[in-house]
Amino acid sequence: MLREALSADADAIADHLTRQIQGHAPLHDAMRYAVDGGKRLRGFMVTETARLCGIDPVRALWPAAAIEAMHAYSLVHDDLPCIDNDATRRGRATVHVKWDEAMAVLVGDALQSLSFELALHPAGAPTEAARAELGLRLARAAGASGMVIGQASDIAAETAADPLTLDEISDLQAGKTGALFVWSATAGAIMAQDDPTPFEAYARDVGLAFQIQDDVIDVTGDSLSAGKAVGKDAAAGKATFVSLLGLEAARTRAAQLTEAACDTLASYGARADRLIALAHYIVARHH
Amino acid sequence: MLREALSADADAIADHLTRQIQGHAPLHDAMRYAVDGGKRLRGFMVTETARLCGIDPVRALWPAAAIEAMHAYSLVHDDLPCIDNDATRRGRATVHVKWDEAMAVLVGDALQSLSFELALHPAGAPTEAARAELGLRLARAAGASGMVIGQASDIAAETAADPLTLDEISDLQAGKTGALFVWSATAGAIMAQDDPTPFEAYARDVGLAFQIQDDVIDVTGDSLSAGKAVGKDAAAGKATFVSLLGLEAARTRAAQLTEAACDTLASYGARADRLIALAHYIVARHH
Repeated sequence: MLREALSADADAIADHLTRQIQGHAPLHDAMRYAVDGGKRLRGFMVTETARLCGIDPVRALWPAAAIEAMHAYSLVHDDLPCIDNDATRRGRATVHVKWDEAMAVLVGDALQSLSFELALHPAGAPTEAARAELGLRLARAAGASGMVIGQASDIAAETAADPLTLDEISDLQAGKTGALFVWSATAGAIMAQDDPTPFEAYARDVGLAFQIQDDVIDVTGDSLSAGKAVGKDAAAGKATFVSLLGLEAARTRAAQLTEAACDTLASYGARADRLIALAHYIVARHH
Repeated sequence: MLREALSADADAIADHLTRQIQGHAPLHDAMRYAVDGGKRLRGFMVTETARLCGIDPVRALWPAAAIEAMHAYSLVHDDLPCIDNDATRRGRATVHVKWDEAMAVLVGDALQSLSFELALHPAGAPTEAARAELGLRLARAAGASGMVIGQASDIAAETAADPLTLDEISDLQAGKTGALFVWSATAGAIMAQDDPTPFEAYARDVGLAFQIQDDVIDVTGDSLSAGKAVGKDAAAGKATFVSLLGLEAARTRAAQLTEAACDTLASYGARADRLIALAHYIVARHH
């Protein structure tokens, strides 16, 4: 059930996002390349929570594409030589390898702008109030109190004298991964002008479980199925959930977070079945 | 009259912008450094058109700070080694020189997010409709059909077989510089839900005149008063308004554009005096 819904929504989101990148300059080609592929977990959280909140699915495609554009920008910049220096992403050459560094900087910059354009598009959220609120929350999730401070803290940790503690790494990941997850899972409620609180709690737990599972994959996975380099964190001596907790305890923690996430949606009954399945999928995935 | 108003508004905008960058991580320090200094021409266009349209000046500070954050992000990324490779900006070390390249990428990214946060802030434009519209227009001005495509075209021109024509360079600058100018000059009308058309025409002409004057300064100026490297375009054999038109004809064209810009505001009478003085200041400036 989840597989079919995720796959159908992922295709619709990808198609919508690609069609919004207009123009035929190399910049636009590179933007389309950068948004191609991926599991669209964040976009699916938007479409699925929108469905649960009674929002027209065609309207939900706009914020779903918005969050995928934001996520794609963050990957392009994270892969840059001066940050993670990754040559492969989603099984293909990264943007700065296929084009060059200047193009990768500009592609990321333009995808961030595009993300706001899509989140604020009049064909998306049905009211001006909901659009303004989605845009404001997106800015806060993406910026210096959300994703970017998480990324900056992650870089700072690499050269810090002491490895991060569990609390510090959890805080860091709440910014780096969690903020966009929270935006995604609350978008439906914001569009419907409903209370976003239960979805916030769900997304925080799912986001942390997602990141723990990423650390597990970095230790147990192979680069072919992961579609990107693995084993980098261990090689760099970086503190991760696995290095701090051990492999089994990390898996247990991810499972506990998943249960907690699902519990927060209990009051929605069967309407939350796919969000619950999504939470379980996130800790079971191998890539 | 212009000098006092520009100086007072520039100080208020700078103060407001700096106070919105909260936090004490190196990222936040570097963001405050990056937004420090500059003439605040774009921010002043916001506060002055807002004044003309009857908007509370305290509300106007939000979009004024927003456009200055957007402009500052574009400078930090443009200065990167992989783009313009500039070590000096506003008479000081650029962000990647003072910190490093990773920090410069993240500072730019976070300043772009901040720009949207400020433009969409409830204390800014008085209605949700105006805020959603300001945000949407800001996204379009900044992204792949505005500022970023202008920057990408500028980079592509450096390695193109033929130098740009006058039409091509005008198109490029309409994106690279013009789009943010248009946003700035129309923000007051959008906030007041007035017709932005006359301000759009004003900003397009002023933006082009601004860029022509930049090319003039690159030929006639010295790096001390310009606060950045000069003579780079000529040394690189790049087509500029000066190389295409000659120095005197470029100055004449800038003056004609300034007159045209002022004519579009004639119907506002004395209320447009400072915007008219601003247009004249832009072509008379030496830095």
